[in-house]
Parts: sequence; C-alpha cells; structure tokens
Amino acid sequence: MARYQLYYWPMIQGRGEFVRLALEEAGADYDDVARGKSGMRKLERFMADRAQRHPSFAPPFLKVGRQVIGQTANILLFLGPRLGLVPRAEADRLWAHQIQLTIADLVEEVHGTHHPVASGLYYDDQKAEAKRAAAAFIEERIPKYLGWFERVLARNAARGGWLVGARVGYVDLSLFQVVEGLRYAFPRAMAQRARRYPKVVALRERVASRPNVAAYLASERRIPFNEMGIFRHYAELDD
Amino acid sequence: MARYQLYYWPMIQGRGEFVRLALEEAGADYDDVARGKSGMRKLERFMADRAQRHPSFAPPFLKVGRQVIGQTANILLFLGPRLGLVPRAEADRLWAHQIQLTIADLVEEVHGTHHPVASGLYYDDQKAEAKRAAAAFIEERIPKYLGWFERVLARNAARGGWLVGARVGYVDLSLFQVVEGLRYAFPRAMAQRARRYPKVVALRERVASRPNVAAYLASERRIPFNEMGIFRHYAELDD
Repeated sequence: MARYQLYYWPMIQGRGEFVRLALEEAGADYDDVARGKSGMRKLERFMADRAQRHPSFAPPFLKVGRQVIGQTANILLFLGPRLGLVPRAEADRLWAHQIQLTIADLVEEVHGTHHPVASGLYYDDQKAEAKRAAAAFIEERIPKYLGWFERVLARNAARGGWLVGARVGYVDLSLFQVVEGLRYAFPRAMAQRARRYPKVVALRERVASRPNVAAYLASERRIPFNEMGIFRHYAELDD
Repeated sequence: MARYQLYYWPMIQGRGEFVRLALEEAGADYDDVARGKSGMRKLERFMADRAQRHPSFAPPFLKVGRQVIGQTANILLFLGPRLGLVPRAEADRLWAHQIQLTIADLVEEVHGTHHPVASGLYYDDQKAEAKRAAAAFIEERIPKYLGWFERVLARNAARGGWLVGARVGYVDLSLFQVVEGLRYAFPRAMAQRARRYPKVVALRERVASRPNVAAYLASERRIPFNEMGIFRHYAELDD
C-alpha cells in the first residue's frame, strides 16, 4: 500500500489538486483512492464510518498509517516538512501556512462567483446573481489578491522568485494552480490583467517547467478543468 | 509593552474575536491595539508599511516580538501551545486545527448570508439575494455544521465534553462564539434547531461559565454583536 492515501472527488481538480500537486512535485508514493477501482465506494464508506474518531467535514482528506487529516491547508501543513516543501524554521512554516490560508480564501471566493446564493443550488438557478458576483470579483478581488501575492514575492529576501525562502514550496505549487484556474475561468479578464503581476506570472512559468510537475500535467493523472469544479469557465461571467 | 499585540478592527467582534477569546481564557498579557489611543491609525500604518516582510492580506494579525502572524486559524495554531489551549501531541494539534478551519469555513458562509454577491457592496444592494442565501444556509448548512460538531464531541474518547482531548481548548472557545453568533443572527431558526445538538449547546454553557470567559463577556472589552460584523441580525433573513 502506498504511504499516502488521498481521498477526494475523482471527477474534478477542486481542492484536492493543491494536495496532488505537492505529492507529485515531491515524487511521493500515494494513491488517489477515489480514482482507483471502486474508488467512490471507498470514499463514501470512509465518510460514513461511525468508528472514525476524526471525521472530516468534507474531502479532501489524507490517510497516513492510522492518522487521518482533513482540510486542504491542514494537509499541506502536515505534508510540507515531510515532502521538503517548506523551510524548517517555525516562523517560515507559519508564514507559508498563512499564505496557503489566503489562497484558500481566494478559492472560496472563486467558487462564490458561480455559486453566490448556495452551493446546493444549480448554477442556472443563480445565474443572474453569479453575473454580479463575478463582475465584482474580477474588478476588486483579482487585483487585491494578485497584488498581494506580487508584494509577497517582492519582499522575500531570498530573491529566488519563490513565495517563502529560497526553494520551491507547496505554496508556490498552489499559487501556480490559482493562476491556471483563473486563466481557465476568466481568460479575457486575465489576459488584460496578468501583465500587472510579472512576478506571479514568472512563478507560474517556473512551477510549470519543473520536471515532476510538467510530467504530471502531461499525464492522465491531471484531470482537465471542467464545469463541475471550483474554476469554471462560463463565458457570460468573464470580462 | 504587552507580550501580544492583536491588530483587528475596533468596532466589531469579527474574526478577531476568536483570538480575543483565547487570549482572555488564558489570562494572557495582550493589547487590542486598534481599540487603544490612535488605534485605527496604528492599524492602518502597519498595513501600509512597505518594510513589512510578512504583510497580512487582512486583519486580524498578531505581533509577538518581531514576528507577525496573520490569518485567524494560523494565529490560534501559533497561540494554542503557548497558551495551553491545545494538547501536546502533533496529531491532536492537527485535529484541533482541522476543526478550526472548518469553523472558518462556517464563518465565511455566515458572512455570505448577508453579502452573497460581493463583500464590497452594501447589504441593501444585495438584500434579495441575501434572503435566498440565508434560507439555504438555515435549511442546509446549519444542520450540516452543527451535526458535524455534535459528532466530533460524541467521538472524543476523553468524554469531558470538549472537542479535542480532556481540557478546554481554543477550538471550544471558537465553537462557543459560533453558537453565540448564530443565535444572535438567526434567533428563530436557532430556537427551533439548537435542541437537536445537545452536546454543542452544553459546550456553549460550559465555556460561558468559565471564570475568565465570564469576566470578559461582562466587561467592556467584549464588543456587542452589531450589524457591521460577521454575525448580523436582519429579521428578514431569519427563519
């Protein structure tokens, strides 16, 4: 059995993708459980298990031996040191985690652009609200978030182009995913705006060209973006 | 100077309240900076400081010596062991943090009940959308979240009525705050539903009666709930 078992919905990148990218970059031994044989049944059985002392509110969660860890940013907090994807000092780890939690906030807001009223309703039942939400997100939130990442990159004293310290970390992989996702969801808005954030764009290129990441992106393990995930392309929501 | 400087908006409980409750329960030496003399100016100056290597995306953030830590759950991750509000074992700390991140998700959803379209717009400009969002939140999300907390309490082998381990922790203080906030925002909905979650309600009582918490709640340091914060009471959004 693989050292790490990742449990996440098999049909989308979603929040699980941030964990997949870390495991892939590190060349870790892992199973993407729900994508394997009888995978969805395993995921559902696990979630319904009343003997589970640490039940997760929602996927993704990671099983390592008998330990089960949920919440995307928490999984990366756990994996970071074990995969060599975060510096050793406690202050650096907290800073990396702070950036990851800000990425989680952004991801939640992106989801809100197509599901502003309720995640339990269909997109078509909240399309008018989604248009207003997406317009505000593009005008106000994309610049606020990308501007903040640009500042974080500019202020990293190590000057290697990474968010924290002198080496690639899980937060860099996550920011790559955010840029990919925003470009997929809002191609027109991003085409106009991305040039204002040259360090963010450079980081995206640098991550994409790492051998393990490039191999992963070219493989069938990388699920394509689609309209079931967090980053969805609806032309009417773009600029 | 106090050992901890908390920077947060002075007029609301908001996300800062989860940090305040932990500091108060532990009897920690702290300043609520923005509530002191020239407090807002200090908060704004700090946020605009270009020499700050770890700029926070938004308040709250905590200053300890030269270290600055942002993101509510991250601040509690840092404070937990220092204030004795989390067990020592790494697995327990990750589990506590996972619960805290789920509370953060709930808090974000509560904010979305009155600001479903955009946080930058007034409530009155998204009132119709808010009615739909609040109805879905009350029907689907409150039961899902409170049911999960109830299960977590039921499955804690220590059986002391706390979320993690055998002693009160920062997550218990945060769940107290969530129950208080939901009761403030949705009194009718909660009056009907709270009895389904007896362990959650009992935890709320137990936290409220702790001497340091009770003294804090009775003091002027506790800002009353109001319609600028996360938990807002708009009668038209209640059940």
